[in-house]
Amino acid sequence: MISFASDYVAGAHPKVLARLLETNLENQPGYGADEYCASAREKICLACDCPEAQVDFLAGGTQANAVIIKSLLHSYQGAIAAETGHISGHEAGAIEAGGHKVLTLPQQDGKLMADILRRFLQDFYADANHEHMVQPGLVYISHPTEYGTLYSKQELIDLAAVCREYRLPLFMDGARLGYALASRQTDVSLEDIAALCDVFYIGGTKVGALCGEAVVFPRGGRPPHFMTLVKQMGALLAKGRLLGVQFDALFSDDLYWEIGCHGIAMAEKLKAILHEKQVPFFLESPTNQQFVILANERLAELQRQVDCSFWEKYDDKHSVVRFATSWSTTDDDLAELRRIL
Amino acid sequence: MISFASDYVAGAHPKVLARLLETNLENQPGYGADEYCASAREKICLACDCPEAQVDFLAGGTQANAVIIKSLLHSYQGAIAAETGHISGHEAGAIEAGGHKVLTLPQQDGKLMADILRRFLQDFYADANHEHMVQPGLVYISHPTEYGTLYSKQELIDLAAVCREYRLPLFMDGARLGYALASRQTDVSLEDIAALCDVFYIGGTKVGALCGEAVVFPRGGRPPHFMTLVKQMGALLAKGRLLGVQFDALFSDDLYWEIGCHGIAMAEKLKAILHEKQVPFFLESPTNQQFVILANERLAELQRQVDCSFWEKYDDKHSVVRFATSWSTTDDDLAELRRIL
Amino acid sequence: MISFASDYVAGAHPKVLARLLETNLENQPGYGADEYCASAREKICLACDCPEAQVDFLAGGTQANAVIIKSLLHSYQGAIAAETGHISGHEAGAIEAGGHKVLTLPQQDGKLMADILRRFLQDFYADANHEHMVQPGLVYISHPTEYGTLYSKQELIDLAAVCREYRLPLFMDGARLGYALASRQTDVSLEDIAALCDVFYIGGTKVGALCGEAVVFPRGGRPPHFMTLVKQMGALLAKGRLLGVQFDALFSDDLYWEIGCHGIAMAEKLKAILHEKQVPFFLESPTNQQFVILANERLAELQRQVDCSFWEKYDDKHSVVRFATSWSTTDDDLAELRRIL
Amino acid sequence: MISFASDYVAGAHPKVLARLLETNLENQPGYGADEYCASAREKICLACDCPEAQVDFLAGGTQANAVIIKSLLHSYQGAIAAETGHISGHEAGAIEAGGHKVLTLPQQDGKLMADILRRFLQDFYADANHEHMVQPGLVYISHPTEYGTLYSKQELIDLAAVCREYRLPLFMDGARLGYALASRQTDVSLEDIAALCDVFYIGGTKVGALCGEAVVFPRGGRPPHFMTLVKQMGALLAKGRLLGVQFDALFSDDLYWEIGCHGIAMAEKLKAILHEKQVPFFLESPTNQQFVILANERLAELQRQVDCSFWEKYDDKHSVVRFATSWSTTDDDLAELRRIL
Repeated sequence: MISFASDYVAGAHPKVLARLLETNLENQPGYGADEYCASAREKICLACDCPEAQVDFLAGGTQANAVIIKSLLHSYQGAIAAETGHISGHEAGAIEAGGHKVLTLPQQDGKLMADILRRFLQDFYADANHEHMVQPGLVYISHPTEYGTLYSKQELIDLAAVCREYRLPLFMDGARLGYALASRQTDVSLEDIAALCDVFYIGGTKVGALCGEAVVFPRGGRPPHFMTLVKQMGALLAKGRLLGVQFDALFSDDLYWEIGCHGIAMAEKLKAILHEKQVPFFLESPTNQQFVILANERLAELQRQVDCSFWEKYDDKHSVVRFATSWSTTDDDLAELRRIL
Repeated sequence: MISFASDYVAGAHPKVLARLLETNLENQPGYGADEYCASAREKICLACDCPEAQVDFLAGGTQANAVIIKSLLHSYQGAIAAETGHISGHEAGAIEAGGHKVLTLPQQDGKLMADILRRFLQDFYADANHEHMVQPGLVYISHPTEYGTLYSKQELIDLAAVCREYRLPLFMDGARLGYALASRQTDVSLEDIAALCDVFYIGGTKVGALCGEAVVFPRGGRPPHFMTLVKQMGALLAKGRLLGVQFDALFSDDLYWEIGCHGIAMAEKLKAILHEKQVPFFLESPTNQQFVILANERLAELQRQVDCSFWEKYDDKHSVVRFATSWSTTDDDLAELRRIL
Repeated sequence: MISFASDYVAGAHPKVLARLLETNLENQPGYGADEYCASAREKICLACDCPEAQVDFLAGGTQANAVIIKSLLHSYQGAIAAETGHISGHEAGAIEAGGHKVLTLPQQDGKLMADILRRFLQDFYADANHEHMVQPGLVYISHPTEYGTLYSKQELIDLAAVCREYRLPLFMDGARLGYALASRQTDVSLEDIAALCDVFYIGGTKVGALCGEAVVFPRGGRPPHFMTLVKQMGALLAKGRLLGVQFDALFSDDLYWEIGCHGIAMAEKLKAILHEKQVPFFLESPTNQQFVILANERLAELQRQVDCSFWEKYDDKHSVVRFATSWSTTDDDLAELRRIL
Repeated sequence: MISFASDYVAGAHPKVLARLLETNLENQPGYGADEYCASAREKICLACDCPEAQVDFLAGGTQANAVIIKSLLHSYQGAIAAETGHISGHEAGAIEAGGHKVLTLPQQDGKLMADILRRFLQDFYADANHEHMVQPGLVYISHPTEYGTLYSKQELIDLAAVCREYRLPLFMDGARLGYALASRQTDVSLEDIAALCDVFYIGGTKVGALCGEAVVFPRGGRPPHFMTLVKQMGALLAKGRLLGVQFDALFSDDLYWEIGCHGIAMAEKLKAILHEKQVPFFLESPTNQQFVILANERLAELQRQVDCSFWEKYDDKHSVVRFATSWSTTDDDLAELRRIL
């Protein structure tokens, strides 16, 4: 059955897997001290145009969010996020399990806007009782957002300005960053992100790796004993090479960029098919996830032939449904979908 | 200066303090094993009409909320509350520090309504991804609410029905319970609360004690090793008699009821004065807290002569201001306020 | 029945309770902003000879330990303590509940010795894998210790030197500090403690208060947003005056010192009686707690007439038993004990 | 350079990697719902002779320990372990970060013995103050232990009997289980472990996988919402197939057993060489890790030609050094080591 269920339905991009095979028998030190992690770090610094960047590899997105946020916050602080932020609703309370509240603000197309953030912070510090409340400790955004939307460069500049004013680190969840960078409707580059954010991660799991996210502190400033915290949170792989080799492959010969472009090209074709078939959009995104509205019966019928994801209730008779593309989506998949629709 | 700043501006009700003095030199075992705790427990069981109730004494409201919620939840669960619930915004993240998310729902006059709760639970369990989310583990309400409003008996019956249907304990924060029970606009008795809630606490700190909240599991079912958890959370007083003696006094000769009635009588007179002086209400409550709207300049001026609390921003030029009465409010205080207004 | 069960069998010292009564009807702001907290702070600064000291009031010892340790540690750090330290075995896991390991070292007479601490730290940092382990974050000692023993001034100087060398805050649990200061076998003054420790608390609960511990950061440096953390941990009393008034009384007219001296005088008489009656000592302490060895049958018999505490198993037929004196112990109590023995 | 540094110096066993390659392009559902996880589960049930077993896959050992322990304990409970247990000293406080104390008991050759456990539990419950202490909640053992030693079948039977008596789950950390099962000096089979333990995991990372541990609840009884907890702890891989495919390969054609046997055969030859060269043993283990004592200078010299691990200080001039074998150790490696020594 063809699948648009997610961008993690297949294994790794063949070039990534090939590198794992080539390097498999080499002896390498554990816990991220191997030469592939070192090489991947170097290539990522170069790609970010940040020679001073500190780069660490973690296995998945929720793990990366939990580790980064715990490393940055004091016990009396919380993480500000859009109410639709992944850390708010879809990570089973990982942030709270680390002892921190997620302070949610209203969203616009899945995004946290600078003016809403500034107003919240102004009101917070104006409140005479604010010492009885969770102190804001960092700002979390995702790019692409949970709805596949993208921040413009100006929006990121504005957010970063508020964060600097209130001395809050700006943290970008880039679980699907490859599809943001390759979008045809973005003016935001990896270098921009590195310049504007205090920490972000480059998603591998959903962009061609078996698993793995590269955490980047672009201007250094990684909290001390970060590795101890990673170990404490069960996130330190003995065979750290598994992540190093994959990111080394992803950042060789523009593979990460190439994967993003393929996913976007497939998404553009997908959008054209959905328009042609007059499927109403809930949100037509500039990235690899498209959200459409289907009557519940039609969805049930469709799912017999196509794997796609129920996203949320639209109304009592309709659902929001997600179609995702990735490096593994083919023109044949799209042709088949067109036929079925 | 006269004070309507809160219901904890004075010390203890004189009868409560007198009991501490009378019993001061007696030798008593520590950690709640003293005879006054035992006697207070018995009187509270009687007042609740729950001979099987398990009663424990804690020092304050945030502490009681944190201990009770932690005792009831598994690590994968959260506490449902109205978005205005005290545990959500005003306890510095005490619930999250214990590892649990507060799952907030829209409120009506500070209250969590049964239909909103039911719809949330229906949608939650209908969502195919709900195993990736925090599981609902209990329902938190406060009575009076943070805005001084009260649940009707029918509203509590409806909430309890949803809770039973979804097997969620219903927990009532009764930090100001004395003023709810004594309100002239309530049909809810202590026996009703004991019959409808699975756990609640009877507030002492704001109803005549120096400190202290009596936690009641009306039909038993207190989680095992509750005392160990209380100790772990730093909430076990060596001289537990401090709480036992005070609650023994509060539940002797109807003192708790008497204090509530006095606070309400003063609040009714306060409301009359505010009406007479045409101060606009933000929320005219049936309990001991009244919320009015004042221009920021007028508030600043007033606060030179009367102690009252800025509550929240109303708009750029006006504030919501709280006036609270208690056992210690006098007719002279009210006369003076009337003169000043 | 006469009681030597603990130093918290009676209520408050009469002068402390009298102050609560005198100030009871005054209106005071909540949460520690009252004038009695301010006055007590000032008196404690003076007593410590530390004009820059920051002083906060908490309700009990486990709470104070938990709050202080959580405020000082990063998530990757633990608290070093003697294996007999109160935080290690007798606080129900309060430190671990806050996310931190207690790193235990061997003790000598209940004390943590500087050379043992230094050797541990040397070995720790020499271990190539130490980034996989909990990082030392502070050093906890209690004075008197859990066995009533005392550090000499030189021992404290040596400990403080190691702590400074490794940049670890030295934290003293002074739950029974009054009995240490008044001991006839000590060369350590309150000023010494303030000069050598980075944070400590002056115990009230076991030295004449109903409840309360005064946390002192003698040279400032209290972690930011300490009050928010106190609130988060359920440790912020609405009627903070309860603690302020009591410590204001304890630090007026040398009352804290007087209580300590009375407890010690009674302990010296107690030791004389135990010697006279040839009760073997497990540990003859210079403070208000004495530990003797009794055959299990004799203990059972004795406890019918005297309240005293089983402490730990000595062997299959004998127990270690604690006798404690306090401000409330009388010459009559001692005479009666002598008669019974 | 030849390496005996650990059993995770190379990548995956070639057959494991081959399966990843073969299945790479298939579309599979995420989060462990793929057909390879299902197949691996079935094969593991069969290997354990436990048709009712519940099997989950996690990425690494510390993660598995943290997740399993958190899933089993209430907040007032701790995990009993030998003082040398991995969770006690070498996981950066992962258990404490989850809120639970590790209750350490003396070890014998790295093992927790039934009589020591029973005595601890007897004394614990005999202590009148045990409600002020962390309650024992489970018993953690590792097999092989941190020193490569093994429990005999009788020792496990005795431990399990104490655990059943006190209703404590017995949890076995099997990070290196393959080398235990294949040891020439064991009478303990996988079926025995499944029969005697309440939960255990079958280590993949150190026995031929890139990463992965298979958590087995042999008679069911996995705590509810285990998947939600796994997600919360950042341990749920989107491409769960990564673990499923590997364990499916490991439990096909006796590969897991074969890898264990190879590691053991190499370890036996290694021991012979060490004996021949008269290198003194610190601990001559029946499994794949051997611990010898080397003068510090000799170790430094050796490490220029052979990768081996400093383990711990033996005395001021000597170190305990670990040599580990695995599936990837070759006869050439051993010949080279013999030459160097």
